[in-house]
Amino acid sequence: MVNIGIHGASGKMGKELIECLNESEFARLSVAYSLDEIKHNLPKDAIVTNRLDELFANSDVVIDFTIKQGALNLINHARTDPKPLVIGTTGLGDEGASLIELASSTMPILYSTNMSLGVAVLNRLVALASNALRDFDIEITEMHHRHKKDAPSGTALTLAEHAAVARNLDLKEVMITGREGLIGTRSKDEIAVMALRGGDIVGRHTAGFYNDGEFIELNHTATSRATFAKGAIKSALWLVNQPNGKYSIYDCLGLN
Amino acid sequence: MVNIGIHGASGKMGKELIECLNESEFARLSVAYSLDEIKHNLPKDAIVTNRLDELFANSDVVIDFTIKQGALNLINHARTDPKPLVIGTTGLGDEGASLIELASSTMPILYSTNMSLGVAVLNRLVALASNALRDFDIEITEMHHRHKKDAPSGTALTLAEHAAVARNLDLKEVMITGREGLIGTRSKDEIAVMALRGGDIVGRHTAGFYNDGEFIELNHTATSRATFAKGAIKSALWLVNQPNGKYSIYDCLGLN
Amino acid sequence: MVNIGIHGASGKMGKELIECLNESEFARLSVAYSLDEIKHNLPKDAIVTNRLDELFANSDVVIDFTIKQGALNLINHARTDPKPLVIGTTGLGDEGASLIELASSTMPILYSTNMSLGVAVLNRLVALASNALRDFDIEITEMHHRHKKDAPSGTALTLAEHAAVARNLDLKEVMITGREGLIGTRSKDEIAVMALRGGDIVGRHTAGFYNDGEFIELNHTATSRATFAKGAIKSALWLVNQPNGKYSIYDCLGLN
Amino acid sequence: MVNIGIHGASGKMGKELIECLNESEFARLSVAYSLDEIKHNLPKDAIVTNRLDELFANSDVVIDFTIKQGALNLINHARTDPKPLVIGTTGLGDEGASLIELASSTMPILYSTNMSLGVAVLNRLVALASNALRDFDIEITEMHHRHKKDAPSGTALTLAEHAAVARNLDLKEVMITGREGLIGTRSKDEIAVMALRGGDIVGRHTAGFYNDGEFIELNHTATSRATFAKGAIKSALWLVNQPNGKYSIYDCLGLN
Repeated sequence: MVNIGIHGASGKMGKELIECLNESEFARLSVAYSLDEIKHNLPKDAIVTNRLDELFANSDVVIDFTIKQGALNLINHARTDPKPLVIGTTGLGDEGASLIELASSTMPILYSTNMSLGVAVLNRLVALASNALRDFDIEITEMHHRHKKDAPSGTALTLAEHAAVARNLDLKEVMITGREGLIGTRSKDEIAVMALRGGDIVGRHTAGFYNDGEFIELNHTATSRATFAKGAIKSALWLVNQPNGKYSIYDCLGLN
Repeated sequence: MVNIGIHGASGKMGKELIECLNESEFARLSVAYSLDEIKHNLPKDAIVTNRLDELFANSDVVIDFTIKQGALNLINHARTDPKPLVIGTTGLGDEGASLIELASSTMPILYSTNMSLGVAVLNRLVALASNALRDFDIEITEMHHRHKKDAPSGTALTLAEHAAVARNLDLKEVMITGREGLIGTRSKDEIAVMALRGGDIVGRHTAGFYNDGEFIELNHTATSRATFAKGAIKSALWLVNQPNGKYSIYDCLGLN
Repeated sequence: MVNIGIHGASGKMGKELIECLNESEFARLSVAYSLDEIKHNLPKDAIVTNRLDELFANSDVVIDFTIKQGALNLINHARTDPKPLVIGTTGLGDEGASLIELASSTMPILYSTNMSLGVAVLNRLVALASNALRDFDIEITEMHHRHKKDAPSGTALTLAEHAAVARNLDLKEVMITGREGLIGTRSKDEIAVMALRGGDIVGRHTAGFYNDGEFIELNHTATSRATFAKGAIKSALWLVNQPNGKYSIYDCLGLN
Repeated sequence: MVNIGIHGASGKMGKELIECLNESEFARLSVAYSLDEIKHNLPKDAIVTNRLDELFANSDVVIDFTIKQGALNLINHARTDPKPLVIGTTGLGDEGASLIELASSTMPILYSTNMSLGVAVLNRLVALASNALRDFDIEITEMHHRHKKDAPSGTALTLAEHAAVARNLDLKEVMITGREGLIGTRSKDEIAVMALRGGDIVGRHTAGFYNDGEFIELNHTATSRATFAKGAIKSALWLVNQPNGKYSIYDCLGLN
């Protein structure tokens, strides 16, 4: 039985992870870390803490779903107190990428903006289509619930990155996130990443490829957060057996 | 037989209008006005000109699909030389609205950002849904071909206007056209109008209403420009028999 | 506090109803009726039974989500032991319709194939569009999770009924549920109702209207079963104050 | 300049082929074969005939878009009078497959149920997803204009075939084309192929993969028939330089 610590146990993803661990035969919740009160039910033998050293001392692997600063704190702590880490927080930026790179020399660390199998496959399909359909214009839309605080979603940015790389484009140069006014004819290389918000949508992403006479649209829809929790736990169980290094969900799924 | 003059005869909509008039039993092309060379086929007895006085002298009604400045010139000319006008050009702004208001005292003038029956019905449905589903978040997306020069489309703005008015909101205060960065929780009243561009998409508009537990999405897709040409000709045939005043496609369809 | 009895407490909708009642300030679960063992958590003071007389004696109103035979038994029992009934079971057929008609003379009984606000609004939109767009072909698709046992869904049939009635068509004469082989040109009046099944889709319905040059598609998607539970409880709270008679969700929402 | 003969010149695809050949710099229309009167415009130097020997004598390659019996007649004639053939007619069945196999020993013959680049890529993506997402339920929908006479479309059947083969399933055993009544729980292997009809839809195909918690939908939409005409002409230009044998659009595009 693998002991899993959750960093961010009071949030929505924390709740999902706890429920999924309740039903797991391979993993159990050993520590629930949160700075806030945890209102959902916990197993009786789980430790509740707001101290990182206690979280690390009682876990074989830690899963993180917090916000940027929380994830950065966690990884920084791990640099002197190494532990396998599964990072599911999005919006870490360049700072996060550098820190993960550094940390990966002393522990196995898996980082993915989306923990679902379907999204991993979609990224592969988008790369393939982007390459095969060179003359097609690319547009990406994502939709999430009204409470999501950052835009576009990490998953949408990752999709756009796959589309751009397949054409040797630098996403930073070609991405736009809105259109208004006299925009003129669309430039061939631009990739729009449009963020919609509303209701309780768990996550919906569409990558479209448009040409004269035809278009292709590739969509992934998450229907429950359990999908991400199951993927994160699967990743954690896999990660505890890996050597130090930087990994993604693709490595875990054998899609690389 | 009603004599129809086309203002903007060399463009894509000009071509569609000419083809549709060829097949009409009630209307004929009398004058094709353009500042550029007209490359598509014209009936032998049609006058080709780049002078507005010649266009007006030989038409019972004029249909305009040009750009903002072209449409404004046309309406200005009509103020001293009145003639029934069907204006299909989008993006006229406040300046255009004022000018149409002025002109409507001396001629019948019909202005619509979209000439299709389906879009007129969609506007009605959006108003109804916006009112009945008060707690639902509203998001609008539109998609057009890569050559469209303004964004969002006039049709999308009209849809958003219908949605806003049904909730007593001022669209100018609540509309956004992109999302990027730490946007925070969605405000209840905001209405996003997102513009996608690519391929040869004639026109696709979706108005979505999202709440916890459910959502509704209302879509209109134009599959050929002939739809707009037929609607404009139908409007022109109707307009020649109306008294001076300002009209929209709803008046012509009896949807008001 | 209104005492609510649940007929079908061990099923998925039973579970949702119990969870929603836990959070209600106006209603409480008084009796949980089921022929099978109920595996989800119940409030301590709720009666668990497999006898209809006990269910009726301890409830102000009964909500039913079972299967055809279960619902018919319940209504039959109520004919000699009247009680306000909310019937959410689908696929009751002509037999069910007659029985509800009979029962409505001695109790208030509300029957709807779908308890969500959004679907009620969609039915209104479909009727309006079907009438306004007379030349447009109508096609309806529905998608549900892989465990759903009947097809097409009651909600899809109700949508199709609204579309047909708006054109004075008899749905039984014009509905088809599949196409294969040399079908020939589509007849003008036919309405296809196509059922898709897969995954854990809660419920997705689309009514499409297609003409030369343009089409409209109106979609409703349920993202959680809580939507239906909330609608059923809202209906029950409303129904206890109504005189004997037959009602639908439209009456409760004031949409009639 | 390659001389192209069209078998089925009076139909909709015949018209598209003629228009595209007008604009081609590598190919010209040499013979227009039809049993019916051809009402659209033809170049002055094109031969019009209803005799297959005349069609073959004056063409370097023949493109066929007719109906089953027309295509079979053409291929049979070619067995004694060999000529490169591009067959775009769908619904040829087992009989057609055998005949093409036979014919391919004495001429190069290319057969595809869909001539678009996008559909070829979609078939690849569907095969990849079907294999990677083994636990996901597969459902396919297609939509075409109201005049299409067979169902499901050849393109939809080809998509379903790619999905089935990737899981070692025999499509004939697992395909269903409608659902009605008490269907019970969905079987794991079934693949629904649902045909919608309406308006002037050129062609829309969606392959969906559904699991608990998430789903993927892959869509191709043709926005004009010119797409298929361009693909057929591209195939013809490529085929004249190939040795005897059986080919598909994948060979022409280098996707095999």
